[in-house]
Amino acid sequence: MGHPMEPFMREAMALAEKGRWHAAPNPTVGAVLVHQGAVVARGWHTACGQPHAEVECLRDAARNNVDPAECTLVVTLEPCNHHGKTPPCTQAILEAGIRNVVVGFCDPNPKAAGGADFLRGHGVHVETGILEQECRDQITDFLTWVATPLPYTILKLASTLDGKIATRSGNSRWISGPESRARVHELRRRVGAVIVGGTTFRKDDPQLTCRLDETDGALQQPLAVVITSQLPNVPESFKLLRERPEQTVFWTTDDAAQSRAAEVLRERGCTVMALPSTADTTHGARDIAHGLAWLRSHHGCLYTLCEGGGKLALTMLELGLAQEFQLHMAPKIMADSKAPGLFDGRNPATMEEVLGLRMTATEKSGDDVIITLRRREELCSQD
Amino acid sequence: MGHPMEPFMREAMALAEKGRWHAAPNPTVGAVLVHQGAVVARGWHTACGQPHAEVECLRDAARNNVDPAECTLVVTLEPCNHHGKTPPCTQAILEAGIRNVVVGFCDPNPKAAGGADFLRGHGVHVETGILEQECRDQITDFLTWVATPLPYTILKLASTLDGKIATRSGNSRWISGPESRARVHELRRRVGAVIVGGTTFRKDDPQLTCRLDETDGALQQPLAVVITSQLPNVPESFKLLRERPEQTVFWTTDDAAQSRAAEVLRERGCTVMALPSTADTTHGARDIAHGLAWLRSHHGCLYTLCEGGGKLALTMLELGLAQEFQLHMAPKIMADSKAPGLFDGRNPATMEEVLGLRMTATEKSGDDVIITLRRREELCSQD
Repeated sequence: MGHPMEPFMREAMALAEKGRWHAAPNPTVGAVLVHQGAVVARGWHTACGQPHAEVECLRDAARNNVDPAECTLVVTLEPCNHHGKTPPCTQAILEAGIRNVVVGFCDPNPKAAGGADFLRGHGVHVETGILEQECRDQITDFLTWVATPLPYTILKLASTLDGKIATRSGNSRWISGPESRARVHELRRRVGAVIVGGTTFRKDDPQLTCRLDETDGALQQPLAVVITSQLPNVPESFKLLRERPEQTVFWTTDDAAQSRAAEVLRERGCTVMALPSTADTTHGARDIAHGLAWLRSHHGCLYTLCEGGGKLALTMLELGLAQEFQLHMAPKIMADSKAPGLFDGRNPATMEEVLGLRMTATEKSGDDVIITLRRREELCSQD
Repeated sequence: MGHPMEPFMREAMALAEKGRWHAAPNPTVGAVLVHQGAVVARGWHTACGQPHAEVECLRDAARNNVDPAECTLVVTLEPCNHHGKTPPCTQAILEAGIRNVVVGFCDPNPKAAGGADFLRGHGVHVETGILEQECRDQITDFLTWVATPLPYTILKLASTLDGKIATRSGNSRWISGPESRARVHELRRRVGAVIVGGTTFRKDDPQLTCRLDETDGALQQPLAVVITSQLPNVPESFKLLRERPEQTVFWTTDDAAQSRAAEVLRERGCTVMALPSTADTTHGARDIAHGLAWLRSHHGCLYTLCEGGGKLALTMLELGLAQEFQLHMAPKIMADSKAPGLFDGRNPATMEEVLGLRMTATEKSGDDVIITLRRREELCSQD
């Protein structure tokens, strides 16, 4: 049996989720006040620059005529103890007279840490680590931004139950159902760039745009990034280069970046850049992390979406560059060993050598299931 | 939004599940009495020969000093209207003075049907079809027994995220985690027979026994059924034939069943039988349904478990002989196109030609997820 405060922490986590995308580059945080076993006030960090979840929750308490001093505060992330855009939440908690605080995950950011100890020093009873892993996983985007120069990258692939991404003749319309495909367009709406490998670019001729009906025409489309050593010689044959060349970026080799093909692409408005080579020949010998950091530093991309193909996807997972892997799995069986699978390129001899991930959520999506996976390295117990 | 009685129906379904395995060959049924938005009495069909769920629920009401006449009865299956081992539940409902009944799935068995109409004829308000599909799926075993001479067959396979069942060198220990493997042993404890294909028999040399610590030595082990055209020539090299030949059955061709190898196996105590040939050469040309019906008629097997391999598994699904498919999926990536996959033998040209199933549940099992799938043909809307 879990901790008695877990149901309240789950409600705080659900509230935190409402701030997803908008809170960036802050973490998504949720908070509730609990009185005699019932939630009496709710708050979450709605957007960067707005009050933190704890303060929103105290405001909700005031609206509801609830005295916070009689309540337990349940918050997904350790309250901040520093003056940033807003005064420290620890101060607000003390001023509200709260005597009991329950925390999900303790902020590892030295700038923000210490809130729990500060509160304890002022006589508040603080319990930490309730649904710790779940609360940590919820802010992996924030933890990535703090610890690395990289954007938070979501890898999304769609497959049949038996791991196939197309028929052997290349037919993949459609593996997943309309609900799952709408989810992909929603992701494309939120991210700064969509990244694909060269084979996917050439075979699928994708637009990589958000095409949701409910979005207005003024929608800012994500950058399209193609990683390939073979730049296209006939730009007109690709939708990306006909429809939005100025939003299209090629990451390629030094040689290709100085080729005539590169010149033609640049004349159309594309960005063509060489990724530094690496000694790591198993991963295409190009430093994808360099490109990702460039997307963040030069284009402000906090989120990117990688849509495969399988070779790039495997590289992203092996290098730890995809913090989240969404597998959209349809209840279909291809049963053809010659049909292309999700991944290729490894040859493990034993089960110990396979690439292991962590499953953090499964969710129905129409007829499909969306399985969310994360890196094993993000386990709290390994911090 | 769902029907307001859905939460109560879900509770009734959860109660019904407690009778799984024991209720056979009756359906698993659960019932609750609801008074002013709260469940005040609970019942389920605990075992064949015991009272039906409705009667158990009325007994619980009596224990709880609840007057059923003031309650709504929520029951997963249409109350029976015939005298079987027990008097008809419709009579008990009328005698209890219940005026409102909510039913999940209406029993298609002509012997049992008509309960709703009978109650309506006596002035009871009856609403049917609440969580109809879920309630139907819960009694697929019973519906199979009523409509066919077959046992209810569960197909279980384990794979990586990318649909691989072993490394290319054949290493499969272990794909799934200890919790999932324990689930398989629990299934083996419940079924009358475990069925595997010849390749699995030869490569894995399985025992196909339940090896749960908590079961006592007196455990009745399931029959082991091997479907193969190549009977083993060296029986001593197989665990099944060393350890429990009298519980081992071979389904084979006419020729093989009359061979010297068959004689040797019979001398050890095995059963060797020819399955009738069929015109259907795509499915091994053997009538597996005939063998399954024999397991039920000659051995009383109401449940069987098929553990692959992939060729047999595909046949079972294609022929509709597996009513339930449990895919135990581990959060691991093989990424080797030469490693064996879940299924093989088809060559669909378009996505329309792939074999489609219905996903009815996903459940965490340690680090794995267990995905339950059923046949599309079992959709209520297609009845």
